[in-house]
Amino acid sequence: MERVPVLKIGDILLVSIQVDMSDQTAVQLQEDLAERIVATGCHGVIIDITALDIVDSFVGRMLSTIASISKVLDAETVVVGMRPAVAITLVELGLSLNGIRTALNVERGMELIAATRDDDYGYDDLDEPGDQSTDTR
Amino acid sequence: MERVPVLKIGDILLVSIQVDMSDQTAVQLQEDLAERIVATGCHGVIIDITALDIVDSFVGRMLSTIASISKVLDAETVVVGMRPAVAITLVELGLSLNGIRTALNVERGMELIAATRDDDYGYDDLDEPGDQSTDTR
Repeated sequence: MERVPVLKIGDILLVSIQVDMSDQTAVQLQEDLAERIVATGCHGVIIDITALDIVDSFVGRMLSTIASISKVLDAETVVVGMRPAVAITLVELGLSLNGIRTALNVERGMELIAATRDDDYGYDDLDEPGDQSTDTR
Repeated sequence: MERVPVLKIGDILLVSIQVDMSDQTAVQLQEDLAERIVATGCHGVIIDITALDIVDSFVGRMLSTIASISKVLDAETVVVGMRPAVAITLVELGLSLNGIRTALNVERGMELIAATRDDDYGYDDLDEPGDQSTDTR
């Protein structure tokens, strides 16, 4: 069975999908990713699909599932490297990749994840003064 | 024909080899990498072989060729993610992976490349005073 490697780069896990995904490979990848997110405490998952000529409903569903699992484990998922033809086919097939965020390439995906985390921290910062004013009232 | 994607992350190009390499795929990868090094001005190439169960003489030669091409284009090549079994087989087969540097994982590979570049700069710094003293003599 082929196994898709999960690479850790800083605070991000990177997966480059190059092989045709079977049921088994997809399930294995989901398990591996979930385990690595927990083990490393990473807050971002980037899935590179540069090598894919076609994203069918099976792969689309797999990406959505990975995004949902990561979300539960407090990690953002960004799909990067989608070819123009793949995007066109996705729309023509009516596949909307629910809950999946995309970026042009790995670097922009990293920026997107960093920006999202910053926003989250920003939100926390905004919350704190509120909490304090509640304490001092 | 399968095509192995080349991902740019900061100053480094990352290649994750997951498919069986044919002659064509190998040549294509070498060309793609050389083009990307020139286009991006990256100084490091990391080749991840986590997914490979076997590194035979063909793949070993391909890695050496990539390292040599990168060297000429002023980029360091580091092979990461080698499995213990692969290392054992390589030694048993008498394949020495000439001119190839290795690291445990992508992050250590990045550190190795960064350290190498720093050393180079350090060397330049040492050179400059010498040049100046030559000028002022």
